[in-house]
Formats: sequence, structure tokens, C-alpha cells
Amino acid sequence: MATSLRFTAAEIARAIAGRVEGDAAVIITGLAPIDQARSGDLSFVAQPRYFSRLENTPAAAVLVETNAPVSSTNGVVLIRVANPYFAFLQIAKNFFQPAASFTGVHPTAVIGERVRLGENVAVGPHVIIEPECEIGNDVRLGALCYVGRGVCLGHRTVLFPQVHLAAGVQIGNDVIIQAGSVIGSDGFGYVKHEGAYHKIPHVGTVILEDGVEIGANCTIDRSTFGETRIRRGTKLDNLVHLAHNVEVGEHTVIAAQTGVSGSTKIGSRVTIAGQVGFVGHVEIGDDSTIGAQAGVTKSIPAGMTVSGYPAREHNLARKEDVARRRLPELLKRVRALEKALVKIAPEVWGKIDETEV
Amino acid sequence: MATSLRFTAAEIARAIAGRVEGDAAVIITGLAPIDQARSGDLSFVAQPRYFSRLENTPAAAVLVETNAPVSSTNGVVLIRVANPYFAFLQIAKNFFQPAASFTGVHPTAVIGERVRLGENVAVGPHVIIEPECEIGNDVRLGALCYVGRGVCLGHRTVLFPQVHLAAGVQIGNDVIIQAGSVIGSDGFGYVKHEGAYHKIPHVGTVILEDGVEIGANCTIDRSTFGETRIRRGTKLDNLVHLAHNVEVGEHTVIAAQTGVSGSTKIGSRVTIAGQVGFVGHVEIGDDSTIGAQAGVTKSIPAGMTVSGYPAREHNLARKEDVARRRLPELLKRVRALEKALVKIAPEVWGKIDETEV
Amino acid sequence: MATSLRFTAAEIARAIAGRVEGDAAVIITGLAPIDQARSGDLSFVAQPRYFSRLENTPAAAVLVETNAPVSSTNGVVLIRVANPYFAFLQIAKNFFQPAASFTGVHPTAVIGERVRLGENVAVGPHVIIEPECEIGNDVRLGALCYVGRGVCLGHRTVLFPQVHLAAGVQIGNDVIIQAGSVIGSDGFGYVKHEGAYHKIPHVGTVILEDGVEIGANCTIDRSTFGETRIRRGTKLDNLVHLAHNVEVGEHTVIAAQTGVSGSTKIGSRVTIAGQVGFVGHVEIGDDSTIGAQAGVTKSIPAGMTVSGYPAREHNLARKEDVARRRLPELLKRVRALEKALVKIAPEVWGKIDETEV
Repeated sequence: MATSLRFTAAEIARAIAGRVEGDAAVIITGLAPIDQARSGDLSFVAQPRYFSRLENTPAAAVLVETNAPVSSTNGVVLIRVANPYFAFLQIAKNFFQPAASFTGVHPTAVIGERVRLGENVAVGPHVIIEPECEIGNDVRLGALCYVGRGVCLGHRTVLFPQVHLAAGVQIGNDVIIQAGSVIGSDGFGYVKHEGAYHKIPHVGTVILEDGVEIGANCTIDRSTFGETRIRRGTKLDNLVHLAHNVEVGEHTVIAAQTGVSGSTKIGSRVTIAGQVGFVGHVEIGDDSTIGAQAGVTKSIPAGMTVSGYPAREHNLARKEDVARRRLPELLKRVRALEKALVKIAPEVWGKIDETEV
Repeated sequence: MATSLRFTAAEIARAIAGRVEGDAAVIITGLAPIDQARSGDLSFVAQPRYFSRLENTPAAAVLVETNAPVSSTNGVVLIRVANPYFAFLQIAKNFFQPAASFTGVHPTAVIGERVRLGENVAVGPHVIIEPECEIGNDVRLGALCYVGRGVCLGHRTVLFPQVHLAAGVQIGNDVIIQAGSVIGSDGFGYVKHEGAYHKIPHVGTVILEDGVEIGANCTIDRSTFGETRIRRGTKLDNLVHLAHNVEVGEHTVIAAQTGVSGSTKIGSRVTIAGQVGFVGHVEIGDDSTIGAQAGVTKSIPAGMTVSGYPAREHNLARKEDVARRRLPELLKRVRALEKALVKIAPEVWGKIDETEV
Repeated sequence: MATSLRFTAAEIARAIAGRVEGDAAVIITGLAPIDQARSGDLSFVAQPRYFSRLENTPAAAVLVETNAPVSSTNGVVLIRVANPYFAFLQIAKNFFQPAASFTGVHPTAVIGERVRLGENVAVGPHVIIEPECEIGNDVRLGALCYVGRGVCLGHRTVLFPQVHLAAGVQIGNDVIIQAGSVIGSDGFGYVKHEGAYHKIPHVGTVILEDGVEIGANCTIDRSTFGETRIRRGTKLDNLVHLAHNVEVGEHTVIAAQTGVSGSTKIGSRVTIAGQVGFVGHVEIGDDSTIGAQAGVTKSIPAGMTVSGYPAREHNLARKEDVARRRLPELLKRVRALEKALVKIAPEVWGKIDETEV
């Protein structure tokens, strides 16, 4: 990155209530895990078994626990703090995240009538906000976003550039939507009439509750009537598709390229791996786990782990997979048995009629 | 939605040639199926077995058949009409679809030379139309759309915001393309030469015939030469990928996240579920059905239903799935047979050489 | 396409050091393979077995090898050249690719402070370039692209319209990124704390080396720290997802809708078909091949071909597939064996306890 971020160990320690051991004026220009750290980096060591890595690290400074039995040697500066890993994430967020490159409303943004903007809202270049939207405080709309008529956005919500919010979509507080995602597209619903498909109007909406986060290039369809809803704290990876009338519970995670068909209800605290497919109109219980590429064809009880196509209880699926690998061998073994029977008791074996078996 | 839509039962009845029974001045502010209706909603009941739902519904008004043996009770207003469901969809489309928030050509749109715009065309903010395009009557281009050089768009076609039409793409009448879709990207074609891949120029185009509808964030590649074509009335869901030189027939439906490799030809009236993959250069017969997540590795005859990987006739695939579940048990049964043979006829069994089986 | 491209056979022959046989003034208006050629097209015949197609082709001119034993008949003009196919591609690229419709910096583009633009850079309408970017010579940025703060772009790199490059992303020379792709989205990384997921800041970046090409609507996440990297010459199809910290080697090809989970390392010269999924933290050896829809759950040695779910050596996978098709039959055969044993030796068979098998 061409930007040149430079902080002293003292500045950083102050922000996380840490204590510097060594040269507090050392300049920190980047962040890295201890095994990848280069000159100028700040790193961390949280576990005793990695203390030895402090010996030869080229890092400028390393976060360690308050009472870690290590000392500043080889010029590496230590910053002692209660929880080194969380402190590291906090520094990443507060010192090294790309700063907002705009504040206020960019003059190229097009803002419709009767739009209410909260305090301290940032609207990037070439953003369109259609009439009658309500935008909360401290919201950031990246460049080239489209915000449809009547959309509501809660406080502190962030849209990365090029996001699409269709008319009437309702977004809570502290929501993050990454670039290129489309929220509120019309669902895939048609009436077949005399051999042709006729689009069913989709007058419902999409609701993303507080703390929901959506990856890049996802698509979330509005409901036919009522709402497609993602409950608070749930996170979606990139290229995920949710069809009309889908509901997802709280604190569920859905990995990339997963697709959920219409009206399926996914519970809370569910873990869904990548490229999973769900048929429509099923229910996925709370605390369940769905393996990568699974094809979920029916409802799943709470707490169950499933995998495979069609998705079934994971241990069962694994047993079947193991057995499947023995299939070529099994075919040989059955043939050997048949051959033996021909020799042992041809008169009996010859009379077993497969069709009556 | 912050917009406040309000219509009387009388206004709505007039639009669909219906007859009001009860308070014709009742205000309708939304739409919902009868089991989800709330105060102020219009709903419908088409089937006698749901007539009982009229008793306690909080709906403001309900559409019923002209001669339905029900009467207005509990204050719910009835609107009698020939086909309640179609009337409901018509009302959804004409009264409750988000109204166009712009007309004419927005001053921030950039329109190239020699572009011909039809009558009553709406061009949203920040749209780019490259030179030499032809845009039919009543076309709507949402905000931030990109329309490449020489594109033709038929009458009444609608592009949602942020759609991409690459140079030379030809779009028919009454086509709908949802947000973020890319039509006319270069195909994935390379010549390998001395260990490196060299891009094959794609000078062909994409043709979407009348009535084609494309979901959000799809990608449809232009052909190397000639054309990638989708025939009239075919509908694509979100995140669908069609490679170069693919052809899709009429009135086919393709669900979300399906991908079709280069030069494959899909027939008419085909039903394709979600996350299906097709290899290149195969033909999928008319009226066939492809199950979700199927991996289609060869051509499929007209009318056949297939599923699984590799895709095979659906009943066969199901039988194999059932048998697969019995595999662990089968392994045990074969072992029991072998053990029995050792006891019954060790001298015969010992001589069966698996390698000669 | 409404544009009317017209060249004489003589003009074209000159550009590729070819020799015209027949009417050098014949007008060429398009390109097509010999079996699809129409009037006005230029085509090519590289293999002797297709020479007969020269007889009846309506093409205006056909490229053939310098010494091909054919002559100009039926009015078709021949252009003799060393390598007809490569000459054809060269003509496609130089004569028939849609010309750039803009040069210089469009007045609607928004360019931040301290941005360095190389020579002969084209910046389309409504492009945003955030501060501190470095753009090489002959770079083309399509309309509506977003280029984040501190991005570096090498020489001759082309962004199609609506591409997203997040802050700090580094792009080499001769890179092509198609419409709607998002490079540098935040990875899907969370810390779970008291039942809720907390976003891990992603301060790493994405590096695309020289000659990398990315299809439409892809998503490539930045690394948590360090970099997500694609090495030179590698090509991605549409809708491909690469998670944070993924590395891909040189001259690898990845077909549409494939997804790669975090920290997985893919080698050089690997061929990956469509809709493949990779778990995280595995290594895929150089020169390996991954079949369509495979689910790769562990590392793969160099040179191996795998397929299926879970992915396994391809010949093995095929044997298992063949055996699987015989499963319903196998069940019957085992049942016949059991029935025979009951008759042959009921006293032995009755004592075989499956639980002890």
C-alpha cells in the first residue's frame, strides 16, 4: 500500500493500556503474525510455546501478556497487555484499517426528496439515494452505491462501494455489506400459464437485523409478500444466495457460494460451510452444522451435523463413504462366494432364483 | 417501507372488474397471503378449504371468486372477482410495485454519440450509454448501468441498477435484467503456447430474446464467434453462469448458482434446479428436468429427469442412493457369508483365488 | 452490433504477412469458424481434413497454410499465412475487438489527491480513484470502476466497467479484470466471543501478478495479514471465490464458480474445472487436475488428477462410480447367497453372529 502509516510503540501502547519494555520510540509501520513478521511490524505472542520465536524475530515490537516470563532481547520491543491477541485486533482496527477517504456528502451523490440523513453520515461519490430513505447516524455509504426508495439504514451501518439496496429494504444498526452485493432483488417466482412463465410481483422486503454482515457479490431476494429476514449477528461470506422468504436466525455463519431456496428457515447458531445447497420449505434446527457442498433435501433437527448429498447425519455419511471405497473389492468378494457355492452345492445354488429373492 | 400506499377497496375493485361486498371505503395499505394478513392488508382465498380463514382474519379485504359461498362477516370486506389469485397478482403489480423514481434522462447520465433513444425512455443517474446504441420505447435503465457500444435494447425492457451490457449485446422486448448482472463478458478461452495461456479474442455476442428474465449478479459470456443465445421466455435466477456459445431454448427455467460450460445447448421447457453444473459441448433435450446440484457430464434425451453426480436417470439415482445407505450393513453380511463358508467347506473356499475371480 | 467494420482482404493480409489468392479487394465484415461462416466473413482452415469445406463456404476469405494444396474456387479468396489459426486470432484482436470508446480522463471521474497516472491512461465515466494510487502507462479503467486508496496498477492493465479494487490492492502489468469483480474484500474471519462473532480486521492485501486475468463477478478476499496472491499468468473464469490468504501459482486455470477456502495453496500449472470447492489450509501440487464439482478435503500431490466428493484419485473415483451402479444388483446377489446357505448348512449359518463378524 502506498500509504505510509507510522506509529510509535508508545502511541500504540497507550491506546490499549499496555506497558512498553524497550525503546518506546520504535516506529511501527505494519502488522503480522510472529512467523511472518518483517522489519517495522508489530506482532503478538499469546502462547508460551511460541516464546522462543521472540529470539530471532525481525519485528519492531511484540505484544505479550502482562506477566509473560520473557524479556526484551535482540532489540525487539515488548508491549505488555492483558490479552495480546485482542489488543492486536484492536490495533489492527484502530490504526491500520484504511481510513475513510471521504466525509460528508460528496457533491456527485444524487439524493432524492424527503431523504433523512442522520448525523455524521458519509456519502461517497456517485452514490444514489432514492426518495424517502432514512439513514441513521454515523452511516458510511461507499462510492457508487444504490439505495432504493424508502430504504431504512440503522446507525453505524457501512456499505462498501457498489452495493445495491432495492426499494424498501430495512437494515439495522452496525450492519456491514461488502462490495457488489444485491439486497432486495425480486425472487424467482413465476406462474406458468399456457406454457409461458409470468413473473409474480414481489411486494415483500428484506430485513437485516443489527450486526448482520454480508460478503461481496451476494444476492438476497425480497419476499413475495412479508419479508426475507436475517436475524442479528449472522454473517454471510461472499457469493451467497438467499431466495425469497428465507429466514436465518441469530449468530449463524454461512460460508461462500452457499444457496438457500425459497421459504427455507435456518435456525440460530448454525454453522454452514461453503457451496451448500438447501431446497425450499425446510427447517434447519438451531446449533446444527452443515458440511461443505452438502445438498440439504429435508429438515434437520437442532444440533445435528450433516454432510453429503443428499445430506445425512455426518457419521453415517462417513461410514457410507468408507464403505463405498471398498465397493470394488466387495464385488470381487461376492463373486468369490458365488463361485464357491457353485462348487459346494451346485444343486442348491442353481435353484436360487434371483427374481424371488 | 417508508412510502405510504393507501387505496380504497372501491378503487382496487374497479381496476380488476370486481364487486365489493361490505365497506367499499375501507383503506388497503398492503398485501399478504390469508395466513399472514395483518390489519390493512388485502388478501385472497381461492380454494374452498380455506374459506374458514375468513372468519378471524385481521385483513381489511379479501378477494374471493364471484360465486364463492361466503359472506362478509367480522367486518372483513369481500371483493368478488373471476380469478382471485390472478387479480391479486395484478393488484400487486399495478398498485404495490415500487413506482419508477425517475423519468426522462437524468442529467448525470453520460450518453455517447449516435445513440438512438425510443419514446418514453427512462435513464437513471450515472448511467453510461456508449456510442451507437439503439434503445427501444418505454425502456428503463436503472442507476449506474453500463451499456456498451452498439448495444440494441428492445421495447419495454428493464435494467435494474448496476447492470452491465458489454459492447454489441442484443436484447429483445420485455426483457428484465436484475442488479449486478454482466451480459457479454469475454468467454474463458485461451490458447496454450509454450506453457502460457493466451487470451482468445471474443468477437461474438450475446442475444437475449423477448421476455427473457435474468436474476441478480449473473454472468453470461459472449461467444468466441457467432452468439451466445437465450430464446424467448426463458428465466434465470441469481448468480447463474452461462459460458461462451451456450444456447438455451424457450421457456426454460434455471435456478440459482447453476453453471453451464461452453457450447452446451439446452432445450426448450427444461427445468433446471439450483447449483447444477453442465460440462461443455453436450445437448440437453426439450422438456427434461435436472435435479439440484446435479453434475451433467453427457447429453440428456428429451423429457428425461436426471439427478446426482454424474447425472443419471432420476429413479436409477434414487435406487443407488437407497442401496448406498445399506452398504455398511452389506459389508457385514458378506463377511458373515465368508465366515460361514470357511466352516462349511474350508477345502473349497480356500481354493477360490480372488485374483482369478 | 450496430458498428460496421469493413476491411479488404488486402488490408488484413498485410497485417499478418499473408499472401492473397483471388480478389484482394473483397470486403470482410466479420469472423467465423468455417462451419459457421456467412457471407462477408473471414474464416480459416488449419487441418487437411477440413479442406473440403472450402468448396461450398459462403465466406468471403479463408486463411490457409502457406503451402496448403488448395486453390481459390467458387469465388472464395484464400489468404496464405504460416499459421492460419494464430493469424485468425491476431486479426480478431486487432481488427474486430470493440475499440476503446474513450481516451484520457473522463470529466465525471473523481480522482483523489496524490494519485499518479502513467502515460496514455484512459479513465472512463464515473470512475472513482481514491487518494495515493499509482496507475501505470496505457492502463484502461472502464466506467464506474472503484479504485481504493493506495492501489497500484501496472502497465497495460485493463479493468472492465464496474470493477472494485479495495484499498491497497496491488495489480501487476497486463492484467485483465472483467466487469463486477471485487478484489480485496475483507476475508470471512471472526472471533467467537460469548456467543457472538466479532469481525477480525483484515489489514493484509491482494496481489495479482503480471498477466493474471479475472472473469466477471469474482470475489478475491484480502488476507488477514500479509497477502492473498495470484502468480503470473493464472486465469480465473467468472464467479470464482478466493478466500483470505489463498495463494495460486503460475499459469493455473480455474473455471467458473469454483471456491477456495482460506489459506489454501494451489500450485502452478494446475487445471481446475467448474464448481470445485477446496477446504482451507491444504496444498494442491503443481500440474494437478481437479474435476468439475470435486470437493477437495485434503492436500493433493503434484501431477495427480482427482474428482468426486471427497476428491480422490480420478481412476479410483471412476471405479467406485462403476461399482456403485451395480449396488442394487449386488444387494440381490448377497441375498441369494444367504438364502443358499440357509438351505445348504442351516446349522452353521444359524450360528454366525453378525455382531461378532
